[in-house]
Amino acid sequence: MARLGPGEVRTVACIGAGVIGGGWAAHFLARGYRVVAWDPAPDGAARLTRLVDRAWPALTELGLADGADRDNLSFAGSLSAAVAVADFVQESAPEQLELKQKLLADIDAATPAGVVVASSTSGYGMTEMQTAATTPERLVVGHPFNPPYLIPLVEVVGGKLTEQWAVDWASEFYRLAGKSVITMDRELPGFIANRLQEALWREALHMVANGEATVEQIDQAITDGPGLRWPAQGPCLTFHLAGGEGGMAHMLDHFGPSLKSPWTRLEAPELTPELHDEMVDGCEREAAGRSIADLVRERDRAIIAVQRALGREHG
Amino acid sequence: MARLGPGEVRTVACIGAGVIGGGWAAHFLARGYRVVAWDPAPDGAARLTRLVDRAWPALTELGLADGADRDNLSFAGSLSAAVAVADFVQESAPEQLELKQKLLADIDAATPAGVVVASSTSGYGMTEMQTAATTPERLVVGHPFNPPYLIPLVEVVGGKLTEQWAVDWASEFYRLAGKSVITMDRELPGFIANRLQEALWREALHMVANGEATVEQIDQAITDGPGLRWPAQGPCLTFHLAGGEGGMAHMLDHFGPSLKSPWTRLEAPELTPELHDEMVDGCEREAAGRSIADLVRERDRAIIAVQRALGREHG
Repeated sequence: MARLGPGEVRTVACIGAGVIGGGWAAHFLARGYRVVAWDPAPDGAARLTRLVDRAWPALTELGLADGADRDNLSFAGSLSAAVAVADFVQESAPEQLELKQKLLADIDAATPAGVVVASSTSGYGMTEMQTAATTPERLVVGHPFNPPYLIPLVEVVGGKLTEQWAVDWASEFYRLAGKSVITMDRELPGFIANRLQEALWREALHMVANGEATVEQIDQAITDGPGLRWPAQGPCLTFHLAGGEGGMAHMLDHFGPSLKSPWTRLEAPELTPELHDEMVDGCEREAAGRSIADLVRERDRAIIAVQRALGREHG
Repeated sequence: MARLGPGEVRTVACIGAGVIGGGWAAHFLARGYRVVAWDPAPDGAARLTRLVDRAWPALTELGLADGADRDNLSFAGSLSAAVAVADFVQESAPEQLELKQKLLADIDAATPAGVVVASSTSGYGMTEMQTAATTPERLVVGHPFNPPYLIPLVEVVGGKLTEQWAVDWASEFYRLAGKSVITMDRELPGFIANRLQEALWREALHMVANGEATVEQIDQAITDGPGLRWPAQGPCLTFHLAGGEGGMAHMLDHFGPSLKSPWTRLEAPELTPELHDEMVDGCEREAAGRSIADLVRERDRAIIAVQRALGREHG
């Protein structure tokens, strides 16, 4: 079977016209693809149109790909009609396991052989979703962030019955479609970014539940605090700089004991020599030769640019 | 005693010339204050000068206050000489409890009556730090984020022996000095922002320890994912929008069960009707009449601005 290369995709089927499905449709249109959508709801087409219309000005401002056209969107009369013409399928149905299992089996049955099918699920592993499919080897998770037309991250991971070529193909396709891809080599509940986000969210809920902080204080704590650093440098590099010239190694030596402190309800792992070294080595790999002073300069420039972009510079 | 108003402060004493103390010195200089610094290390003055020199171009670019001058920085020969001339004292010594207790008592003894003394501590409560001071009622925590000259957030909270006027005075002073202030009405280990950050950090360490994710994947997951939303809208408003037109109420109904999922090692609190309502009401208060569509437009504009500012728009 001559399989289409990730760079040869012309038509993407978007199944589901909710916030995520509509966001994907907008993204693929802006990157120059034809999009065929389908949703079982009677107002699905209207909802999808509204979602894409709302996103389009932002996407235009950000820069459309050559040939990108709002009118490359069509709405199919049936699931099978939508996926029959697809070079890639993105499923974004509600988060209900049985629904996903059945829908992915239906998609699989109607999609041309060799075409990769990705699920936007934020909660399920592909292993538990692919059980009813006839050719489960081409089913992968392609988990986006809201809104998919602006947040670059996609986490790609297969299930037990997924073949490696499908994971690789999807990762390469998303990259060509302008996404920032993390390819995971094993299933993990919540994947990576949602585990990080969920830990923060649960701690926030605990604080509100206990009357320790208000919703507004929690949001202010992030938007005016660590949230300003994270678009530029993630949590590991952030702490690499918190260690001063000594970087992550000094940070772990100095603040290691604080992992025993009740600073969150989440218990910390033991800071073994192996974990210590992995954190230090990882930061060195990311720094890729840049000194702490270099990284501080980059961080400062980025924070200033972000503040300015948000209209928050000093008067 | 005629106490100086928060708007009448001219001279700030910065005690400690590490990354945080130096960052505070740079911030106060840029906002037009005179800064008298002190550090017990032989190379303290040189280190402080280097830190301020490195920060100054960024601060100049961001916009200096009227009268701000890099040369308004001096280094005192002793702790008592530094605080004797201060209208406000910011202590940023290493995170060691006994050292902080002793140092705050020494500062308290040498600082003019009625002058507020704030500690940059990220780990201790003022109740445990103020034990040796003679006039502990004017001691508060004023916890900044790195770098203090660019990240606006300061968390202000007193200890058991702190009087309310000192908490209010410090909060107002920081606001006038250009900071975004959260005034807490009770002590909480790690305060608010660090509890959120620490939950995320511990989950990250768990993933690295278990070989589930690399340092680079964790940083990419944040910088290219949720981290792009958080400078504009905190975690609560972010999820308010994840609920579509139904907002936080729909989000909690739809994703509430996921609080039982093993998406992080942190156990979630029970989603009681009270917690449900507090989250929904808090988001409504923050939205302040803005519809979900309004907030989506604001979020999209902000994410685009941030991406552009970081040079990440599509080619």
